Amino acid sequence: MSVPTPIAERIAELGSRAVAASRRLAIAETDAKNAALNAVAEGLDAGREALAAANELDLAAARDAGLSSAMIDRLTLTPARIDAMIEGVRQIAAMPDPVGRELSSSTHRLGMKIVKRSVPIGVIAMIYESRPNVTIDAAALCVKAGNAVILRGGREAAHSNAALADIFRAAIMEHLPEDAVQFVDNPDRAGVTHLVQAVGVVDLVIPRGGEGLIRAVTEQARIPVIKHYKGVCHVYVDRDANLAEALEIVDNAKCQRPGVCNALETLLVHQDVADELLPALAARLEGVELRGDERTREVIDANEASEDDWHAEYLDLILAVRVVDSFDDAIDHIATYGSRHTEAIVSENADAQQRFVRAVDAAAVMVNASTRFMDGSEFGMGAEIGISTDKLHARGPMGLNELTSYKYEVWGEGQTRP
Amino acid sequence: MSVPTPIAERIAELGSRAVAASRRLAIAETDAKNAALNAVAEGLDAGREALAAANELDLAAARDAGLSSAMIDRLTLTPARIDAMIEGVRQIAAMPDPVGRELSSSTHRLGMKIVKRSVPIGVIAMIYESRPNVTIDAAALCVKAGNAVILRGGREAAHSNAALADIFRAAIMEHLPEDAVQFVDNPDRAGVTHLVQAVGVVDLVIPRGGEGLIRAVTEQARIPVIKHYKGVCHVYVDRDANLAEALEIVDNAKCQRPGVCNALETLLVHQDVADELLPALAARLEGVELRGDERTREVIDANEASEDDWHAEYLDLILAVRVVDSFDDAIDHIATYGSRHTEAIVSENADAQQRFVRAVDAAAVMVNASTRFMDGSEFGMGAEIGISTDKLHARGPMGLNELTSYKYEVWGEGQTRP
Repeated sequence: MSVPTPIAERIAELGSRAVAASRRLAIAETDAKNAALNAVAEGLDAGREALAAANELDLAAARDAGLSSAMIDRLTLTPARIDAMIEGVRQIAAMPDPVGRELSSSTHRLGMKIVKRSVPIGVIAMIYESRPNVTIDAAALCVKAGNAVILRGGREAAHSNAALADIFRAAIMEHLPEDAVQFVDNPDRAGVTHLVQAVGVVDLVIPRGGEGLIRAVTEQARIPVIKHYKGVCHVYVDRDANLAEALEIVDNAKCQRPGVCNALETLLVHQDVADELLPALAARLEGVELRGDERTREVIDANEASEDDWHAEYLDLILAVRVVDSFDDAIDHIATYGSRHTEAIVSENADAQQRFVRAVDAAAVMVNASTRFMDGSEFGMGAEIGISTDKLHARGPMGLNELTSYKYEVWGEGQTRP
Repeated sequence: MSVPTPIAERIAELGSRAVAASRRLAIAETDAKNAALNAVAEGLDAGREALAAANELDLAAARDAGLSSAMIDRLTLTPARIDAMIEGVRQIAAMPDPVGRELSSSTHRLGMKIVKRSVPIGVIAMIYESRPNVTIDAAALCVKAGNAVILRGGREAAHSNAALADIFRAAIMEHLPEDAVQFVDNPDRAGVTHLVQAVGVVDLVIPRGGEGLIRAVTEQARIPVIKHYKGVCHVYVDRDANLAEALEIVDNAKCQRPGVCNALETLLVHQDVADELLPALAARLEGVELRGDERTREVIDANEASEDDWHAEYLDLILAVRVVDSFDDAIDHIATYGSRHTEAIVSENADAQQRFVRAVDAAAVMVNASTRFMDGSEFGMGAEIGISTDKLHARGPMGLNELTSYKYEVWGEGQTRP
């Protein structure tokens, strides 16, 4: 028999504590969960100094390691970011309890009432990269939905994450089992492997981070994973588009916040409107690098787009542009290169709108609206734990309701099956 | 570069055909899907001779291989079973289309209408063992829900399954792409591995069969799996039970059809009612082998239960019996040994009923009703592709609605994000 490694033992211990906590959380009252979350908000406010000190340790290490200024910015817990975390936790406390909702009900011919009711999922493993606020946001959402969570953050934010998790655990103790939230303090990378293979312990894995992290988790996992993967979002400007509207939407989708997953990456233009639209677009998107196919470059100045550009999630002020022969070619391009995140059509033609909405396989399909609206809070869900690009269980913004499962209750009076 | 094996190439070919078919199925009209299914029903009726001949090849091989009579029975396509398949397909054709349902809708503050609407999942891989009727049942459910399906049945039913799949494909051709349904005709076991690792091609894997099959699929899969695992179902007879009702329920749950996953396997009896219940139970369940813990055997004659018995899914006229000190001990036993399938309490105490329903983690929880009611048709869903013991996406009976995903449609008039 092989001797378990320290990390294997640690994950097993965290796992059994999480299972025990999840059983208590599943029957926790709404008031207890909300009181616990409000105590977390107070704990964060009272813990600003400790958080700043822990964060400074991470920042010093990041500077020593020569991390980019963008990375260091993401790591930094400014007072405003702590305010935002506190506000976020308070908002989650104020939201309706997603557990115990009656999703449907019916009466069996023999008289039993059958109720389908929402319940917690159980134990969730959250595996994420640098931003420390994920520690609080994810823990608050999981706990509100009655789930125990095991957090495994990035090494570069280790001190900040540990300090945040400590505050969370201490704050909830009076109301809920503290093991509702646990943090993997051992930096051994094998911890991720043990976590995502903990069959019978962890019910769901949510990875958040870059492509490498998500691929590694997906390949190793033996339990369900809901991926929050990249957004290679398209806007297709149809032959029947209102071109002034198209310009507004393309500008907004590309430039309003280019570094996020619902930003536009590739523009598809119907050949019949390319000559009119593209010059106006080039003038409008002055600060944006355009990478066009051959037909685009016949109309405007642009760098040459390669095959890689159609796959690219730039997250930057770069836009790939392709002129397509037809509606169907646009659909084919999206089916080939899209990431099933968010796709948009600009068209005044009702038939084209309907066909686009039905034919495009994506979490969200926009008709004459910016891709930037694909977001839990824009969709009225409040906080989200991420945007799922998977099709099972949760698709698109994943809020509190998506962090629940359900069970069937059958209320009888001695009925037996004939 | 390694040379692809014949089975790898075959699975890749089936996969790309399935993806192409799924794009056409996603936009197929309800009438076309229903006409296709009714044509399948006619095709099965017209194909009885061919089916009998194919089935006879499997049966001859089974007899030569010395398979058990139970196995041979499961393999056999009797005229009555063909009738049942035909009737099942007709029923699925008559059911409402699960695609295109408006699941919720809202209006954004800027005026866009946001609609959450059901859509097909995409490509489903169905991996199953001996019963050939699964070929038709699964294919009909998948196609009605707009999914392409790749079927990989057991080797012992290869001729029967291939004949059934041929009839299905030929029948739908006039209405839908025939590649909506494909059958893995290469018996190489590596085909299962390639199928469950076809990331970006297969969207969901549904294994149906014994524990070995399900474990193998789960360990190898790189895409979501919904498991239809064993049912170690309990009935807990509370201190406050109506004992006459308890006897009826235990008898029905154990004996009405012992070979199925929602049959009772372990009876838990509160110590306060053990002396009265157990002798009556032993008399009533005369043909059932009882395996009891020590306290049970102090009251009635029973074989000794070992630790294995608490884990056992007998699927036979055997019942494990344990006397518990308290309600909480019953809950703990179920948490430790239950399979999250179906659990029941017999009690007249409203508080105990509520606590049981909330605390027990299972797809279905029965109050004063037999575990045998856990079934898609009893729950009013019509046909089911199986009973999920997972908690993600679908839990419990998995019918047409559970074979869909959803997308968000955002209908705008040029809105951009401020």
